[in-house]
Amino acid sequence: MSAIPEEFLSKTAKVDEASIQPFPNSRKIYVEGSRADIQVPMREISLADTPTDFGGEKNDPVVVYDTSGPYTDPKVTIDVQKGLPEVRTAWVEERNDTELLENFSSEYCRERMSDESLDSLRFDLKRQPRKARPGKNVTQLHYARQGIVTPEMEYIAIRENSKLQALKASDLLKQQHPGQSFGANIPEEITPEFVRDEVARGRAIIPANINHPEVEPMIIGRNFLVKINGNIGNSALGSSIDEEVEKLTWGTRWGADTVMDLSTGKNIHETREWIIRNSHVPIGTVPIYQALEKVNGVAEDLTWEVFRDTLIEQAEQGVDYFTIHAGVLLRYVPMTAKRVTGIVSRGGSIMAKWCLAHHKENFLYTHFEEICEICKAYDVSFSLGDGLRPGSVADANDEAQFGELETLGELTKIAWKHDVQVMIEGPGHVPMHLIKENMDKQLRECDEAPFYTLGPLTTDIAPGYDHITSGIGAAMIGWYGCAMLCYVTPKEHLGLPDKDDVKTGIITYKLAAHAADLAKGHPGAQIRDNALSKARFEFRWEDQFNLALDPDTARSYHDETLPKESAKVAHFCSMCGPKFCSMKISQEVRDYAAENRIDTVDVALEQGMEEKASEFKEQGSQLYHKV
Amino acid sequence: MSAIPEEFLSKTAKVDEASIQPFPNSRKIYVEGSRADIQVPMREISLADTPTDFGGEKNDPVVVYDTSGPYTDPKVTIDVQKGLPEVRTAWVEERNDTELLENFSSEYCRERMSDESLDSLRFDLKRQPRKARPGKNVTQLHYARQGIVTPEMEYIAIRENSKLQALKASDLLKQQHPGQSFGANIPEEITPEFVRDEVARGRAIIPANINHPEVEPMIIGRNFLVKINGNIGNSALGSSIDEEVEKLTWGTRWGADTVMDLSTGKNIHETREWIIRNSHVPIGTVPIYQALEKVNGVAEDLTWEVFRDTLIEQAEQGVDYFTIHAGVLLRYVPMTAKRVTGIVSRGGSIMAKWCLAHHKENFLYTHFEEICEICKAYDVSFSLGDGLRPGSVADANDEAQFGELETLGELTKIAWKHDVQVMIEGPGHVPMHLIKENMDKQLRECDEAPFYTLGPLTTDIAPGYDHITSGIGAAMIGWYGCAMLCYVTPKEHLGLPDKDDVKTGIITYKLAAHAADLAKGHPGAQIRDNALSKARFEFRWEDQFNLALDPDTARSYHDETLPKESAKVAHFCSMCGPKFCSMKISQEVRDYAAENRIDTVDVALEQGMEEKASEFKEQGSQLYHKV
Repeated sequence: MSAIPEEFLSKTAKVDEASIQPFPNSRKIYVEGSRADIQVPMREISLADTPTDFGGEKNDPVVVYDTSGPYTDPKVTIDVQKGLPEVRTAWVEERNDTELLENFSSEYCRERMSDESLDSLRFDLKRQPRKARPGKNVTQLHYARQGIVTPEMEYIAIRENSKLQALKASDLLKQQHPGQSFGANIPEEITPEFVRDEVARGRAIIPANINHPEVEPMIIGRNFLVKINGNIGNSALGSSIDEEVEKLTWGTRWGADTVMDLSTGKNIHETREWIIRNSHVPIGTVPIYQALEKVNGVAEDLTWEVFRDTLIEQAEQGVDYFTIHAGVLLRYVPMTAKRVTGIVSRGGSIMAKWCLAHHKENFLYTHFEEICEICKAYDVSFSLGDGLRPGSVADANDEAQFGELETLGELTKIAWKHDVQVMIEGPGHVPMHLIKENMDKQLRECDEAPFYTLGPLTTDIAPGYDHITSGIGAAMIGWYGCAMLCYVTPKEHLGLPDKDDVKTGIITYKLAAHAADLAKGHPGAQIRDNALSKARFEFRWEDQFNLALDPDTARSYHDETLPKESAKVAHFCSMCGPKFCSMKISQEVRDYAAENRIDTVDVALEQGMEEKASEFKEQGSQLYHKV
Repeated sequence: MSAIPEEFLSKTAKVDEASIQPFPNSRKIYVEGSRADIQVPMREISLADTPTDFGGEKNDPVVVYDTSGPYTDPKVTIDVQKGLPEVRTAWVEERNDTELLENFSSEYCRERMSDESLDSLRFDLKRQPRKARPGKNVTQLHYARQGIVTPEMEYIAIRENSKLQALKASDLLKQQHPGQSFGANIPEEITPEFVRDEVARGRAIIPANINHPEVEPMIIGRNFLVKINGNIGNSALGSSIDEEVEKLTWGTRWGADTVMDLSTGKNIHETREWIIRNSHVPIGTVPIYQALEKVNGVAEDLTWEVFRDTLIEQAEQGVDYFTIHAGVLLRYVPMTAKRVTGIVSRGGSIMAKWCLAHHKENFLYTHFEEICEICKAYDVSFSLGDGLRPGSVADANDEAQFGELETLGELTKIAWKHDVQVMIEGPGHVPMHLIKENMDKQLRECDEAPFYTLGPLTTDIAPGYDHITSGIGAAMIGWYGCAMLCYVTPKEHLGLPDKDDVKTGIITYKLAAHAADLAKGHPGAQIRDNALSKARFEFRWEDQFNLALDPDTARSYHDETLPKESAKVAHFCSMCGPKFCSMKISQEVRDYAAENRIDTVDVALEQGMEEKASEFKEQGSQLYHKV
C-alpha cells in the first residue's frame, strides 16, 4: 500500500464542484417515454421577454440536447464513491437473455480484485458482472434486426428530437435553411422505429454495454445529430484517478457525447472502474494499450491470449466500445516506410511492430471472429481503428491509409454477420480538398457504417492551435457525413491536456458538430442559432450568454469591457458604444416597414416612401440612446 | 490641452517591446530585385540536423512569408515617434506623375493641424502630402494596363515566391498534393509580369497609397497567397493612441497582411496618423465612421461634402483602401425588415438610415464616379462594403445581401473604367453549405475582382469562440477563391479585443488562410507543413516550435508537461511517455524497409520478410528508450 502515492488514493475522490453547477437560467427536464422508466434528460433554457421597443413578445424556452448527465440535476446527490444511478438495469433484465456471473471471467481482473495492496484505490463495486446467457446475442443490432424496438431506442428517439415538435408553429423552427446532406436521409422527426431501422441497417450504433447500466443511451450515425468524443486517461508521466474522473465530468458538462479512456499509466484497471461507474456517457477504450502494459511495453510479447483476457476484463467492467486495430495488415506496413511521419497511431504502431517482429498477420485480424463473439456477449461496439492514419498532410490519403480502410470495410461485414455494432475510425491530418474523398470512400467501403474521425487537421503548421486546425476539418467531414468527431485539444502534439484544454477542445468540437448539423439541414438544428441571434438583436444580453455553448466565457468576455450590471440591459455594446448602434437602426427600419406595410421592394417603392421621409427624419435622431 | 487625459498623450508613445523581438532561430533576410532599392524581406528559419538515428542529414533553412516588417529586424532602430523608413518614395517620384502639395487639401485636416490644443498628441509629420498631377492617374491598375511593371509589382513577385525556386530539388517541395482550386489560375512561379497581368485584369489589387511610402507592397487576389486582415481602432469606450500602435505592431508580427483602423472614438485623425506612419502594411479605413463623428453621430446629417472632405483627408494621410458602402441602395433597405438580425454592418446601417430619412438614393452610389476621381489621384483601392451582410445564419444569402452584391458588381465595372483598384467585401454569418454560393456569385457578379470576407461564421451559438466558428468558414471560402480573410477575435459580439485576443484572432486566420493555400495547391504551400512534420517525426522539438505559426505558445504548452531542457532533445513526448513511441517504431519500420529494399507491398512479400523477422525481434525491444 505504501507504494501508492497519496494523491493517487481514490478513497478521497470527490466530485468536481465546477461540474455540478446548474447552467444559468436553465433547468433539467425529463421527457417521459411510453413507460415511466424512460426519462430522457434535456436542458431547458428560459428566456426573457423581448423589450417593448422591439415588440415586447414572450420568448419560449429553448430546449437543448444535454450531455451533462445527473451532474447538473440539483435533485441528484452526487457521490463519486458510489457512482451514478442505474438507468438501464430493468431494460437489460427484462430481455431475459443475460445472467449474472459469480465472479469476473478475466484472470487478470480476478488478480487485481484479490490484491489487497490495491484496496485503497479500488472503486467499491457491489454488483456482479453480467454476460449473455450461452448462445444469446445481446447487441442492440441483434434486437433491431429482429424488429425489436428496445427502450434504449425509444429513449434515443426522444432525445434526438429535443421536443422539436412542440415548436412546429414557431418562427425559430421555420427560419431554417434547407440543408445539403450529401445523401444522408434525415427524417423530419426521429421515431423509435427509425432508430431501430438505422441500427438494423448498420448505419448507426448505440454503444451501451450491459455492464454499463449507468449510461444514458445515445446514438452515432449519419442520420442523427453529429456527436463528439473527448479523450481522457492517465499516462506514464502522471495524473491521478481523481483527475481523470474530474476530466470526465468536466468534459461531458461541456458537451462530450462519449469519452475514451486512453490510460497508459499506472492502475489502468482501477482508473477505468472509477470512470465507468461515474459515467453517464458511453466509454470507449483501446484495449491494446492495457495489453501492452501487461507485457511490460514489449509489443513483440503480445499474445492473443493476453489480449483476449483484456477484452473480457474490460467488457465485464462495462466498456461500451473497443478500438481494435485489426486493419493493420502485415502487407500494409512497408507502405508506411516512405511517409513523412510513418505510423503515428499508437495502436497501429504496436500492431505493426508485432507483425514485423513475428512476420505473422495481425492477430486482431486473424482472431476477429472470436473478438466478435466477446462483443456480442456484452454488447460492446467496435470502433475499428485506423492504425495507419496519416500523421501529416503529406501522408494523407495514401495507399497505406486507404488499404487499411478497405480492410476495415471487410471487417465491418464480418462484425455485421455476428450482429455486432461497428463504427470506423478515420484520420488524422488531411488538407481540406482531400477530406471528402475520405468520407466518400469510407461510406462506400464500409457500407455506411458510422465514421468516427480525429479532426482531421487541415494543416500541420499551428501546434498550440490544433483544436482549430482540426475543428475546420471536423466541421467539414461532419457535414459530408461523419457521425462522430473525436476532439483535439490545444495541447495536441505538445503535452497532456489540463482541464482548460479539455473544455476548449470540447467547445470547439461542439461548435464544429453543430456547424455540420446546420449544413446537413438537420431538422431543428437552427433553433438555437435563431434564438441566440434574436436575443442578440434585441439586446437581451443574458439570453445571449445563456444560449451560448459556453455561457461563462461569453459573460466574462462581455464583462471585461462593460462590467456593470446595467450594461446587461443596455441597448448597445462595447463595439460601437452607446451613441450609434446598427441593431437599433435596423429596428427603426423594421418599425418603418411595419408602419408602412412594406414587405417587398416593389411594394415599398409603390407605396411612396417619400411621404414618410421627413416624418422619419424627425423621429430618427431621438432614437439614439443617451450615454 | 488639459482636456486630453494623460494616457492619451502620444508624445510618450513607444514601441511595444514584445513586437520587436526576433523570432527564435530566425533571421530577417532581404532578397534583392532587379535594382538595389528592391529589397524584399523574408524570414529564414534555421533547422537542426536530423539526429543520427533518423539518418543524420542536414536540413535546409525554411523561408517564410514575413509580415512583421522592420520591427523584427535587429538592424533597424525603431522609434514610433519618427515612424518607419520609406520604402517606395523613389519609385513614386520617378514615375513623375505626382506633385507635393503646399498644404493638405482637406479643410477638416487643416483645422486639426492648426489646433494647438492637439499638439501634444499629434504625430510630427515633416512630409508634405502628395497627389497626382492634374489629369494623371497614379493607380497600380493604371500602370498595369499600360503594360508597366512597377517596382511594387516586382517586389510582390519576389515576395510571393518566398525563394521557392531554391527548393526545386527538395523533397519538401515535391511532397505536395495537387490542389483543387475551383478555377483559379496559379502559376508555378509568380513573375513580375504575372503580377502585372493579374492587376490589369482586375483580379488582384496592390493597396499602396502614394502617401504611404512606408508600405511593403503586397497583393490581394485569388491567384496569390490568401491574405488576412486584422482590425484595430479605438471606440467611444476607450483605448489610446499608444494601444492602437501596439495592436498594429503586435497584429502584423503574428501575420496580419493588412490592418484596418476602425476607430470611432476620440481623435480619429491623429490616431490614424500614428498608425499609418508606423505601418509597413496597407491600412484600410471605413471613412463613413469618421464622417459620422463629424456630424455628431446623426446619420441624417451626413452630406456628400462632409464625406468628400473626409476621403481627401484620409487619402492625403496615406490610407491604402477605403470601405465604401455604395451598394446599400434605397430599394434594398426594406428587404432587411423581416430579417432575424436586420442590418448589422455599421456602415450599412448608417447609409440605410440616411436613405430612409431623406428618401434619396445612397449618396455614395450617386457620387461614385467622383469617389473614383479621388481614389485615382492617390491610388486608394476600393473595398466595396457589404452593408447588408447577414448578421445571423438565418439571414444568409437573402435577397438583400445578394441584391447588394449585384450592385457591387456594377460598381466594380465603374471603378475599373477609372482604373481604380477594387475588392469586394463579403459576409458575415453563413452556414457551411451556403458559403460556396457566396463565392461563386461574387466571382460572377464582380468578374473575379478580389473577394474579402469577414469569416464567415458558420454558426451563431458560440460567442466567445467566434474566431473558431468563423475560422471554419474563412478556411473554406479561402479555398473556394476568397483573396483576403478579415479576422474575427474571441471577443466578437461581446467586447473590445485586447492584445491576446488580437493574437488569437490573427493566428486563427493565418492557419485558415494557410489551410486554404494548401487546398488550392498553391506552389510551395506545403513546404512549411512538411518541414514541421519531419521535425516532429525526428523529435527535433525546437525546430517544431520554431516552424510553428506561434513558436511561443507551442514551446510553453510543451514545457507545461515536460519543462526540462533535456526533454527538448528526448526521443519521446508527454503523450505516450518514454516507454513506448509510435514515431520510434515507424523509424524501425523504415530502417527495416531500407535494409530489405522494400518499396511496395508486393516487393515486401516477395522478399520474404520471414527471414528477417527473428533478427528484427532481437533488435526491436532494445529500441525503446530508457526512462
